Amino acid sequence: MKLTILGCHSATPRDNARPTAQVLEVKGHLFLIDCGEGTQMALRKHGVKFARIKHIFISHLHGDHVYGLVGLISTFCLLGREQPLHVYGPKGIKEMIELQMRLGSSYMPFELRFRESVEPTATLLLEDDSLTVTSIPLNHRVYTHGFLVREKPGERHLDVVACEELDVEKAYYRKIKQGADYVRENGEVINNEKLTTPGKPPKSYAFCSDTMYKEDIIPQITGVTALYHESTFLKPHEDLCKKTKHSTAAQAATIAKKADVGMLILGHYSSRYKSYDMFTDEARPIFENSHCALDGKVFEF
Amino acid sequence: MKLTILGCHSATPRDNARPTAQVLEVKGHLFLIDCGEGTQMALRKHGVKFARIKHIFISHLHGDHVYGLVGLISTFCLLGREQPLHVYGPKGIKEMIELQMRLGSSYMPFELRFRESVEPTATLLLEDDSLTVTSIPLNHRVYTHGFLVREKPGERHLDVVACEELDVEKAYYRKIKQGADYVRENGEVINNEKLTTPGKPPKSYAFCSDTMYKEDIIPQITGVTALYHESTFLKPHEDLCKKTKHSTAAQAATIAKKADVGMLILGHYSSRYKSYDMFTDEARPIFENSHCALDGKVFEF
Repeated sequence: MKLTILGCHSATPRDNARPTAQVLEVKGHLFLIDCGEGTQMALRKHGVKFARIKHIFISHLHGDHVYGLVGLISTFCLLGREQPLHVYGPKGIKEMIELQMRLGSSYMPFELRFRESVEPTATLLLEDDSLTVTSIPLNHRVYTHGFLVREKPGERHLDVVACEELDVEKAYYRKIKQGADYVRENGEVINNEKLTTPGKPPKSYAFCSDTMYKEDIIPQITGVTALYHESTFLKPHEDLCKKTKHSTAAQAATIAKKADVGMLILGHYSSRYKSYDMFTDEARPIFENSHCALDGKVFEF
Repeated sequence: MKLTILGCHSATPRDNARPTAQVLEVKGHLFLIDCGEGTQMALRKHGVKFARIKHIFISHLHGDHVYGLVGLISTFCLLGREQPLHVYGPKGIKEMIELQMRLGSSYMPFELRFRESVEPTATLLLEDDSLTVTSIPLNHRVYTHGFLVREKPGERHLDVVACEELDVEKAYYRKIKQGADYVRENGEVINNEKLTTPGKPPKSYAFCSDTMYKEDIIPQITGVTALYHESTFLKPHEDLCKKTKHSTAAQAATIAKKADVGMLILGHYSSRYKSYDMFTDEARPIFENSHCALDGKVFEF
C-alpha cells in the first residue's frame, strides 16, 4: 500500500498547511480519503492522475474534510470525465454536492453515485476480489466514521518442485495457487499445503479522523499494518480534546499500542504547535513506531 | 483605490493558477470580490487581515467564483469573528452556504447577512457616505452580474488665502469644504467657488466577469477609472466565446475603448494559453492602456 498525504492539518487552511486529504494506492485502486479545500490543487501538485480516482471516502461533514469535494467534482465535469465516481460519506453529502452543482447549472457528463452512511456500527462499504472497505464508527462532534481498508488474502506461492515431483498437471496450477487441493483422475487428493507455501500476508490500513479517544475501535483495527489516528492536540491541551472531541498524540499512541498495529501515523495538527517533533516526542514513549504525517509525505507499507 | 488580484484564472484551479478572487481597498473598506476555491489561503498569503473584510460580492454561482466562500466563512467562525458579514450574490447563495454550515453543525458567532440578487437591471447594492456599489447585469450561462464601485465626490479644497482675505469665520470652513456658500451675518452671500477649488475627482472601478461581449454595459461603466473585464479566450477561439458565453481579449478591449475607461485589466484566462503577453498583444492595438491581471499583482489607481 502506498499512502500519499495531501493535507494533514486541522481547521483553518493555509498554503503550507492543507486540510485533511490523502490518497491510498492499493490493489490497483486509488482511493481518495477526505477532501478539504484545495485538495484538487494538491492532487495536481503531486501528479495524481484524476482519472484513476474512482472512489472517494469522506469521514464527516466538517469543512476541513469536505469543502474541496464539490470543486474536484466540478473539475471532473469540466475535464469531460465519463467513468462513474463513487462517493462514500455521511448522510447529507449528496444534498450538499447536488445543490451546488444545480445552482451552478453544471453539466454532469458521468454518473455520480453516493453511498450515504447513517449506521452507528461498522459497515461494509465496498468489496471486490482483492479488498474490503469498512466504516469505523468514531466519536466526534458530528457523525463521523473512519475507514478500514483490508486486502483479501492473496494467492499462495506455488511450490513448483513439489508439483513436478507429484506430477500435478499444469492446467491446475492457478486453482492450486488460489487454495484448491489437487484431485487426480483416480480420485486421490493431494492437500494444497503439500503444493504451496503461504502468500504475502494481506495488508490493512485504518484511517481514524476526527475522533476523541475511543477504545471501542480497538477490536476492529487490531493488527492493522498502518493506523492513521488524529492527534490534534498535545497533552497540555488535553482539556480541549474533551471539549472539541479530538485526541492528543499520547492518546493516539495508546490506541496504536492497545491495537497492536504495525505503524502509527499522526496528523490533523492544531496550528498552535510550531513543531511536528512535539507530536512524535509525545507518542513514541508509548508506541515507538509513530510517525508524523506531513503534506506531500509518502508512506509505503 | 488599491486592487489586489488573488486569483484570475478560469475553471480548473492549480496552485499557480488560482480561480477568481480579488480585494478592493477603497475609502476604508476592503471588499472581497468573488471567492473561488483556495481564496482564504490566498488572503493569508498576501497578508490581508480577515477582520477588515465586511462585504463580499459574488458575481455568479459557478464554482471558480464561489467555492471558496463557505470555507472562508467557516474560518471566520473558527477565529471567533463577532462583527457582521454582508454577502451579496445571486439567489441561491444563502441556501448554498447555510446548508453546508448546518451539515457541519457549525456554530456561527457573528451575524451573516445575505443580499440575494434576482434583478435583471443594474441595482444599488450598498451605499454609505463615501461610495456606492451597483450591480452590472452581464450575459453568461447562469445569472451573473458584475459590480460597479463608485466613490462619491470628496470635499473641495479650501482656498485659505481667499477665505482670510474675505474674512470668513474658521468655524464655517468644514461646511464650505463640503460645498456650502458662506453667508455673512448681514446676509451677504459669498459663492463657494470663490472660496474653494475642486477636490480630487472621485474614482470608480467596474468588475465584469464572467460575460460574453455585451455592449449594453457601456453606458453604465463609461468613464470608470479602471475596468476589469474577463478575457477567457483569444481571437482564434472566438467561436468558444459564443458557446461558453465568455469574451476574447479583443472584445474586452473594445468595451474598454467604447466606454472610454481609464485602464483595462484583463483576466479569467483559459489554461490553454501559455503566455499572458498574448492577451495584452491582442488588446493593446484596440485599447492601449490594457494590462494583465496576475495572481498577487496589485493595481493602484
